Amino acid sequence: MTYEETFVTTTCPVARTVDLLGDRWMLMIIRDAFDGISRFSDFQKSLGVAKNVLASRLKILVDAGVFSLIPAKEGGAYKAYQLTDKGKSLLPLIVSLRQWGEENLFDDGEAISHLVDEKGLPVAKLVVTSQNGTVLKSERLQRIGGISPVRDKS
Amino acid sequence: MTYEETFVTTTCPVARTVDLLGDRWMLMIIRDAFDGISRFSDFQKSLGVAKNVLASRLKILVDAGVFSLIPAKEGGAYKAYQLTDKGKSLLPLIVSLRQWGEENLFDDGEAISHLVDEKGLPVAKLVVTSQNGTVLKSERLQRIGGISPVRDKS
Repeated sequence: MTYEETFVTTTCPVARTVDLLGDRWMLMIIRDAFDGISRFSDFQKSLGVAKNVLASRLKILVDAGVFSLIPAKEGGAYKAYQLTDKGKSLLPLIVSLRQWGEENLFDDGEAISHLVDEKGLPVAKLVVTSQNGTVLKSERLQRIGGISPVRDKS
Repeated sequence: MTYEETFVTTTCPVARTVDLLGDRWMLMIIRDAFDGISRFSDFQKSLGVAKNVLASRLKILVDAGVFSLIPAKEGGAYKAYQLTDKGKSLLPLIVSLRQWGEENLFDDGEAISHLVDEKGLPVAKLVVTSQNGTVLKSERLQRIGGISPVRDKS
């Protein structure tokens, strides 16, 4: 099975998103965008990523409609990468990465950044629920339609 | 800034999670685990990934406590990779990848798999809220503490 067969033609939406965004730089660029960064040089400074790598990732994100490229307010040659509505709808993804890291990848007492609302309160924990609000554990979920996963019978 | 300085010592939980899991194979392995796959050969068949790549990713996931490695039920040499509680708490991450893909990466009429609860109903949309339940847009959020992002002034 080739890469393209696995991901691009897959009927699994997880796989399609991973195909587009399942890369450390993609995810860090999107994090930075939610933090207010919009200029190439500022992404570059924040992430310490090679310019050619950054340029290729930003081009993919513009082509995919995650960013729109707009003239920067002060005019001149600078352009700003601005999250579109499609890009802004990645907020649950970034928050889920953040919350898992908060709970699992910090020792007690380590310095940690927080994501807070305008009143300074941390955002609520993301919880997977059914449509009537019942909290769902992974054991109660099933993937239907599309490709059938190989299920372990052990 | 070196890679290690950016990610491993960062105070940003998004970056630490991305450092561990921000890789297409990591994310696809975790998706498969939620779909019930637990054996090396079944991950290999499902993903079409090279065995050495799969082995290295699974080792990292076991070392990180996302999977525990247990004897398969039928005995014999086979071991099963089972999501720990820490691993199961990645459910919102996988669901956020899925829901963004569902909304943005499928044309009308394309075959798509669905994640449903035990009654066959799709899981509810993940929404970022404040602790009192108010839906939060990204513009209303701020990252405090830890490293200061480079903010664009344009």
